[in-house]
Amino acid sequence: MKDFPAIKTVGFIGLGIMGRSMAGHIQAGGYQLHVHNRSRAKADDLVAKGAVWHDKPGEIASVCDVVITIVGFPQDVENIYLAPDGLVAQAKPGTVLIDMTTSSPSLAQRIAAAGAAKGVAVLDAPVSGGDVGARNAKLSIMVGGDAAAVEHVRPVLTRMGENVVRQGEAGAGQHTKMANQITIASNMMAVCESLAYAKQAGLDPRQVLKSIGAGAAASFALNNLGPRMLDGDFAPGFYVRHFIKDMGIALAEAERMKLALPGLTQAKALYDKLAAAGHEDEGTQALFRLYAA
Amino acid sequence: MKDFPAIKTVGFIGLGIMGRSMAGHIQAGGYQLHVHNRSRAKADDLVAKGAVWHDKPGEIASVCDVVITIVGFPQDVENIYLAPDGLVAQAKPGTVLIDMTTSSPSLAQRIAAAGAAKGVAVLDAPVSGGDVGARNAKLSIMVGGDAAAVEHVRPVLTRMGENVVRQGEAGAGQHTKMANQITIASNMMAVCESLAYAKQAGLDPRQVLKSIGAGAAASFALNNLGPRMLDGDFAPGFYVRHFIKDMGIALAEAERMKLALPGLTQAKALYDKLAAAGHEDEGTQALFRLYAA
Repeated sequence: MKDFPAIKTVGFIGLGIMGRSMAGHIQAGGYQLHVHNRSRAKADDLVAKGAVWHDKPGEIASVCDVVITIVGFPQDVENIYLAPDGLVAQAKPGTVLIDMTTSSPSLAQRIAAAGAAKGVAVLDAPVSGGDVGARNAKLSIMVGGDAAAVEHVRPVLTRMGENVVRQGEAGAGQHTKMANQITIASNMMAVCESLAYAKQAGLDPRQVLKSIGAGAAASFALNNLGPRMLDGDFAPGFYVRHFIKDMGIALAEAERMKLALPGLTQAKALYDKLAAAGHEDEGTQALFRLYAA
Repeated sequence: MKDFPAIKTVGFIGLGIMGRSMAGHIQAGGYQLHVHNRSRAKADDLVAKGAVWHDKPGEIASVCDVVITIVGFPQDVENIYLAPDGLVAQAKPGTVLIDMTTSSPSLAQRIAAAGAAKGVAVLDAPVSGGDVGARNAKLSIMVGGDAAAVEHVRPVLTRMGENVVRQGEAGAGQHTKMANQITIASNMMAVCESLAYAKQAGLDPRQVLKSIGAGAAASFALNNLGPRMLDGDFAPGFYVRHFIKDMGIALAEAERMKLALPGLTQAKALYDKLAAAGHEDEGTQALFRLYAA
């Protein structure tokens, strides 16, 4: 087992809707927080409560025992971790770096290997549960990477989530998140098509949900996003453009593994069409637009 | 409101796995049962407890206050109801006929119209919940047809199910069941593709279910059929061939309504492939075979 220092300082990079809530929970847990974000204004609340601002993300790795990142796209992750002045280059041995972005499993493996060469454990730990889960510290956290490092940072992770499960070595967290997104993708078609059919057949779709929402057709999406579709409420809980990113990663990984996923392929094509029509900044339930015309 | 006679005698036609349980609940409720089935042996238990056997289904309509049918395919439904010696021809005015087969909405409307011309209410009332729901009298029953007739037979329906919802006029029950099956169809792809991806990526899919089974990806199918897929347990709860029938009906209705359902179309194509490979008498979770090769 590696020799990890006690965790006193935690870095947090990426203070979007989810990141801000998550960093707040860690701060509330008594850790000294160090933060960076593309736009500084989003750090104001945390800084007012004692967090230390850094202009450069790499800097944070040199002063923290644990560093967490949750940013936008795999390209951002690659830059933050692997740039010459990035996290891996700047981290001290014994530091644990945790990427909670939904990103590429292959990239996670590459970064973990780069870290290991320096005695720095890098974990991939994407989440599900959305902004509400982040706010209530009830995220599901899917972790890949060195087992001892995972146990070492578990007290930090459990500040943010209830369901923290190590899924295997580096990349396994991202692969698990891909499995999560693959499940959601085809089910979104299922929910849209069911409700569009019900409307077109002249039924009251809310009444239909009373019949089908509790049995073999039941799903989180049917019961939570179905009503929003029917209300025409397409406000983002989870952005179409982020979902398209995730499906693209999953399809690339599946292709690499020679696995055909026709449902996911179909769902991705529909979401691409939705984005092309200008709806990429809406929530994933906006897929219903394609059926409701 | 029509003048309905008090319900003392109930006919039941179609004593398959589900029908037998359902008829038993009605018998246990104190109604005099009259039964018919293609093969007589399946009626033995009910007859031993006092049910009256009839060789011809039409006969039952002439002696019962309510007649329930749950048979295989729309063609069977059409024969039983619309043949010259069928239920509609033989029923007395005031009798309520209830088809609980999953069948064509258009056919349900046609039969209801034929019944109405004779003063006989015909309801469509397909169910979800499977053999377990039938055994435990916990079916979800989706009802279409005359509102007064539905209220009249509600005490009989609630012998079989907990969730009895009138969805509208004739055909609305079948349309609701189609919405149910449409939701299940694409979600079955979702579950198969997610678990196949997890396996191929080298994860432990049961461990993956711990991470994804309770959040935004959660569904009845993921949590109930997913483990059976992983166990290679393809024993039928719901037959592939019946599901293909249902998807065929839904696609035909959608086409009639000029509604494109790409997810359902893809799912049906996969199930057709599964049936062509000789698996039509397995359970719907056998779809996983196509991905696990």
